[in-house]
Amino acid sequence: MQIYNPFKKFNRPKTVSGVFNETEVELANRNSGMPLESLEYDITPIGQHYLLTHFDIPHINKNEHILSFSGDFSNPYSLNCDEIKLLPAETIPVTLECAGNGRTGLDPRSFSAPWKYGAVGTSEWTGTLLRPLLKKAGLKSDVVEISFTGADRGYDSGHEHNFARSLTLAQVEELDVLLVYQMNGIPLLPQHGAPLRIIVPGWYGMASVKWLTEIKALKKPFDGYQQVGTYRFRQSKEEVGEPITEMRVKSLIKPPGIPDWTSRKRLVSPGLITLTGRAWSGGGKKITKVEVLSNNKWVEAKLINQNSKYSWTKWMLDWSAKPGHHILSCRATDETGDTQPVDPIFDVGGFANNSIQKVEVFVNDY
Amino acid sequence: MQIYNPFKKFNRPKTVSGVFNETEVELANRNSGMPLESLEYDITPIGQHYLLTHFDIPHINKNEHILSFSGDFSNPYSLNCDEIKLLPAETIPVTLECAGNGRTGLDPRSFSAPWKYGAVGTSEWTGTLLRPLLKKAGLKSDVVEISFTGADRGYDSGHEHNFARSLTLAQVEELDVLLVYQMNGIPLLPQHGAPLRIIVPGWYGMASVKWLTEIKALKKPFDGYQQVGTYRFRQSKEEVGEPITEMRVKSLIKPPGIPDWTSRKRLVSPGLITLTGRAWSGGGKKITKVEVLSNNKWVEAKLINQNSKYSWTKWMLDWSAKPGHHILSCRATDETGDTQPVDPIFDVGGFANNSIQKVEVFVNDY
Repeated sequence: MQIYNPFKKFNRPKTVSGVFNETEVELANRNSGMPLESLEYDITPIGQHYLLTHFDIPHINKNEHILSFSGDFSNPYSLNCDEIKLLPAETIPVTLECAGNGRTGLDPRSFSAPWKYGAVGTSEWTGTLLRPLLKKAGLKSDVVEISFTGADRGYDSGHEHNFARSLTLAQVEELDVLLVYQMNGIPLLPQHGAPLRIIVPGWYGMASVKWLTEIKALKKPFDGYQQVGTYRFRQSKEEVGEPITEMRVKSLIKPPGIPDWTSRKRLVSPGLITLTGRAWSGGGKKITKVEVLSNNKWVEAKLINQNSKYSWTKWMLDWSAKPGHHILSCRATDETGDTQPVDPIFDVGGFANNSIQKVEVFVNDY
Repeated sequence: MQIYNPFKKFNRPKTVSGVFNETEVELANRNSGMPLESLEYDITPIGQHYLLTHFDIPHINKNEHILSFSGDFSNPYSLNCDEIKLLPAETIPVTLECAGNGRTGLDPRSFSAPWKYGAVGTSEWTGTLLRPLLKKAGLKSDVVEISFTGADRGYDSGHEHNFARSLTLAQVEELDVLLVYQMNGIPLLPQHGAPLRIIVPGWYGMASVKWLTEIKALKKPFDGYQQVGTYRFRQSKEEVGEPITEMRVKSLIKPPGIPDWTSRKRLVSPGLITLTGRAWSGGGKKITKVEVLSNNKWVEAKLINQNSKYSWTKWMLDWSAKPGHHILSCRATDETGDTQPVDPIFDVGGFANNSIQKVEVFVNDY
């Protein structure tokens, strides 16, 4: 009998629409989504932000942790956590979404974390800006990329590695990358990257490396698995594909009324109710419009406030709930005119599905 | 066309072993499990304790929240959160496990939250003991039960209700029920029952009602859906069944080595490693033995400490990892001699599966 060994290179199992196996269920449970009722909050409460943990959550002693600036810097150095806290601090509210959010809407579906809508959240991240730290380290003239390596180690598709990602010099210059040690006013929790991580505002979550141990200057483009083997837009597995970067424009409805425990379908009393939700886009782009679909008509919602460049925008719309069965959807547009498609754009890895959400609602007649 | 209406009474879909549908996946993602690597911690870090939310997480204003003692008390009264905080405070570390933990191991499997191992966690709960508050309210002589009602409302199997549970007078007298407003030293988070909940130490989690609004004295046994319609041991749906109360004896291994991202199988280097994990039982019963199964032999582990009557016990065992494929399991025994079965005990609702965990490990040969 041949033993299935997940640590050798292998092809992921084929998936069937609407049917999942136990491994996917376990991934769904380990990697928790934000409950959609928490679209209520500007800042997602602690413990409700989505979590995607590729390997195990490392258990790191903050007092012994060192961040090294290594590779092709002219002045490589390292910092401990106390030294980083003495640097100028910034707090930025940032909406982060997992690149795999919406994967279950694609067919065939990539065999990975089976996200539906919940892989999103907004937190206030506190830390210090990365740019001055790189400047201090001194980039040699032929450096092209900076890589970020975490303490988390494991296998993905037969490749053993620490989770690591890179940014080009142009990206580091353009993005407000933050070296973070606090979230929502408390020290980073283990599952969010304690004691140190980066946040790359405006991008999908994979760029925001957790449990950060090393920042390295590279003379060649980084070829780590999480950079070149996945997180790329591809129509087939054979393609090299284009790297995934900024979040696509997206919006969600806070499901109205009360739920059914298992199906999560909603019961609403008839009459006027206020629908509400959140909309966001990548790269700090403003949301300019949110529309709600009801009875085959798109109706424009009121936009409330975007409390910072990188955090989601609240929207509200009064809706006259009439007895019967309804599917509610919403659709956001950003300042560049990008909007959400009704049907998903196919990607073989199941990435960046920003097609419209569907919320099933029954309005009772009593 | 008949519209499927989850708010009318219906039979849950039949399940097939190892095959799950999208609704179960969504429940697995909303109701997050504790990552098993967090068996490392005596006290589960904030945001990693398991969560089972039957309906939606209510959004409650703590400053306006009132807890009422109503029904057949001779002196009904109510308390706000500030008044409760002035009462004598206790902090108790308690291991809580969802009664549905292990449901995926049963065949056929009840269509509900598809827990494998992660629906467990240990927190330090701070609050005031319930008994003196009931005494102050004055139980009328013919009172038989006390019910606890939460603010969370929805449908389960066609029944609309607020989540509510009851305890008999004898149970209230025997159990150290705590009226809780803090968890791990911080105010209760919304998803854990803010601003007020109870903790019933030693019992499965369903008894520890969240978002508590009312404590009611009853002259008849409580007949709410969560008391009589579910959370009962039954061999078939037609049975009335026996109510589920104390946790069964159970133990888990912290998976050693490093994981494969999707399959969660483990790679370990050859040589001596220390296996570790946690064991617990219900009703405050002590763990007296933990054994680890390797190569068809049960070997007794060392028990470290049980930091309080109601929290789990750490265990450790040195294991000589030899190249090849291994299945590791552990088995706890409590002071009454109860131990874990190798195969699950069937229950139609998928409750209280305390059969031994299986951790698949590859030991490499280089």
